[in-house]
Amino acid sequence: MKRIAYIEEWENWVEEFHFHTEVKVRFSEVDPFNHLNNTVPFIYFEDARIQLFKALGFMQEWSKPGSETIPVVSDLQCDYIKQVFFDEALKIYVKIAAIGTTSIDLHYMAENEKKEQVFVGRGRIVHIDKTQGKPAKWTGSMVERMENMKKSVTA
Amino acid sequence: MKRIAYIEEWENWVEEFHFHTEVKVRFSEVDPFNHLNNTVPFIYFEDARIQLFKALGFMQEWSKPGSETIPVVSDLQCDYIKQVFFDEALKIYVKIAAIGTTSIDLHYMAENEKKEQVFVGRGRIVHIDKTQGKPAKWTGSMVERMENMKKSVTA
Amino acid sequence: MKRIAYIEEWENWVEEFHFHTEVKVRFSEVDPFNHLNNTVPFIYFEDARIQLFKALGFMQEWSKPGSETIPVVSDLQCDYIKQVFFDEALKIYVKIAAIGTTSIDLHYMAENEKKEQVFVGRGRIVHIDKTQGKPAKWTGSMVERMENMKKSVTA
Amino acid sequence: MKRIAYIEEWENWVEEFHFHTEVKVRFSEVDPFNHLNNTVPFIYFEDARIQLFKALGFMQEWSKPGSETIPVVSDLQCDYIKQVFFDEALKIYVKIAAIGTTSIDLHYMAENEKKEQVFVGRGRIVHIDKTQGKPAKWTGSMVERMENMKKSVTA
Repeated sequence: MKRIAYIEEWENWVEEFHFHTEVKVRFSEVDPFNHLNNTVPFIYFEDARIQLFKALGFMQEWSKPGSETIPVVSDLQCDYIKQVFFDEALKIYVKIAAIGTTSIDLHYMAENEKKEQVFVGRGRIVHIDKTQGKPAKWTGSMVERMENMKKSVTA
Repeated sequence: MKRIAYIEEWENWVEEFHFHTEVKVRFSEVDPFNHLNNTVPFIYFEDARIQLFKALGFMQEWSKPGSETIPVVSDLQCDYIKQVFFDEALKIYVKIAAIGTTSIDLHYMAENEKKEQVFVGRGRIVHIDKTQGKPAKWTGSMVERMENMKKSVTA
Repeated sequence: MKRIAYIEEWENWVEEFHFHTEVKVRFSEVDPFNHLNNTVPFIYFEDARIQLFKALGFMQEWSKPGSETIPVVSDLQCDYIKQVFFDEALKIYVKIAAIGTTSIDLHYMAENEKKEQVFVGRGRIVHIDKTQGKPAKWTGSMVERMENMKKSVTA
Repeated sequence: MKRIAYIEEWENWVEEFHFHTEVKVRFSEVDPFNHLNNTVPFIYFEDARIQLFKALGFMQEWSKPGSETIPVVSDLQCDYIKQVFFDEALKIYVKIAAIGTTSIDLHYMAENEKKEQVFVGRGRIVHIDKTQGKPAKWTGSMVERMENMKKSVTA
C-alpha cells in the first residue's frame, strides 16, 4: 500500500468512517482508456460533503436568503488506489478529521462492492463571511453539531 | 499567501513554468454560488497534461495499437487561491517537477488575465505496463525528452 | 401541456414505459439559476440507454474484442417540462419506440418522486459497421430480443 | 445528407450563421469509443447561446439583482453528422431563427477546421417571469436588438 501523508494508521483511519453516500459510475465518466476519469472522484467527494452538510443542518442555513456565510473549498486531493470501471456501485465515505476555528478538514474514502478502498482523499473547507470575503468563526451550535457527529463516529 | 507544501519558494516556483494551454470558463462550470466549481480545475489540469504529453511525443506512442504502456494518475491535488468566474480566460501552466524511474511529478498553475495565480496543484503520473498492471521504466528516449523540456524551462 | 411532436397520445405514451434507471441530482449538475443544467438530461438518457443495451445483451457483444459493430447516436432531443432541483431522485425511463433495419428509435421519460414527468425525450441509434463506417443490419437475434422487450412492455 | 426537419434548404441555412464561439475538444469529453460524447454538443450550444445573450446585452440585464425575468430552455435537439475527436478545434455558430412574443427559436451549427458541419441543432428559449413562473413578453428594446442582429446576419 502506498504511503499517504494524511493517513497515519490505515485500519483505524478506515474504521472511523460512518457517513456515506452511494454512486454508480456512469458511462460518461469513463475515459478512452476505459477507467473512471481522474476528475470524477472530486465530483463524488462534493456530493458526499454536501450530504454531510445537510445531515448537520448547515446547507439549510447557508441556503437561507440573508445567510451571511458560505463554505469555500480551500484545497482538495485524491489518491487513486485501484481502477474503477463503468457501472460499479461505490460507497463514498466522508468524515470530519479536524475542526478549526474557521475551517474543517474532511477526509474521504471510496469503497467498491468487494469492500476494497478504490480511492481516498482529503480537503479543507473554510467558513467564509460573504460580505467581507474573509474566514468567519463557526458558531457554537455549528461546532457542537460537528463534535457530536465526530463523537458518534469515533465512540 | 497560504503555505502550500509542494511550493518551496513562490517566485522561483512561478517562474519555472513555461508550457501552458488556454481555457475559457464555461457557464456549465460555474456552481450555484456563482464560482468555478471545485472539480473543474482537475479537468483543466488534465487538458494541460495531455498537451504536454503531446509536445513530448508521448501521446502519439501511447495511442499506437500495440503500445505496451499507459500513463496512470496516482494522485492529484489543487489549492484554490482566488475565486474564478464565468467567462474568465485562464492560462493553465504545467511543468515536470521531478522525474523518477517509473513516474513523474507534475506541477500546475492557473493564471487569470490580471496575471494573478488563481489556483495551483500537483500530481504524480505513473508509467504502467498494460499487461502486468505494474510500473514500467521510462525508456531512455522518454527520459531524454523530459530532461530537455525541463532544461529549456529552467535555463 | 405543450405539444411534443413525438408523443401522439400522452397517457398511452407514458404507460408504455417499463424499463428505468434511478439517478440523484448532484450539486455539480445544478446551474447558477439553481436548476438542473439543461445538458444533464442527456447524460441521464445515456445512462438509461446503456442499461437497456445491457439488459438486451447488446453491450456485452459490442464490448467483445473483435466486435464488428457499435451503436452511434444519430440525433437526440429533450423537452423540459418541470424544473428539477439539487438532490431530487428521478426515475429515467427508456423504451424502444420503433425498430428499423439498421437503427432504432428510443423514447425517454424522467419522473420525480411525485410521479410528475419532469422532462421527456427521444433519439435514434444507428448500428454501425466499424470498418466501413456504414449502417449495419441488426442480426436476427438482436431484432428478436428487441421485439420481445417491446412485447413485454406493451402487453 | 440526412433530412433534418428544422433545415429547409441546407446552403441558405448554413450561410445565415454569422455569430460563433470557439471550443477545443477536451480529453474528458471523449468517450470509451474515442468519439466526442453525445452530451457534449449541448454544453457547446449553451456556451454559444450565453455569448449571444451577452452580445445582445441580455445576460447583463438578467444578472442584475432585482431582474424579474430569466431565460429557460424549453427544448433542445442535436443531429450528429460527422465524428468529432479529441483536440479538434470547432466553431460553434448560433443564430436567432424565429422571434415569438415570449420565446425565441435558436439554431446551432458546429464546424471543424476543414469547414465541415459536424453537428447541428436547435432549441426554444422561453422568457420567464421569475415570480409567477410564467412566460413574459420580450420588451420592445429586446425585440429591437434581436431584429437588428437578425438583419445584420441576413442582409
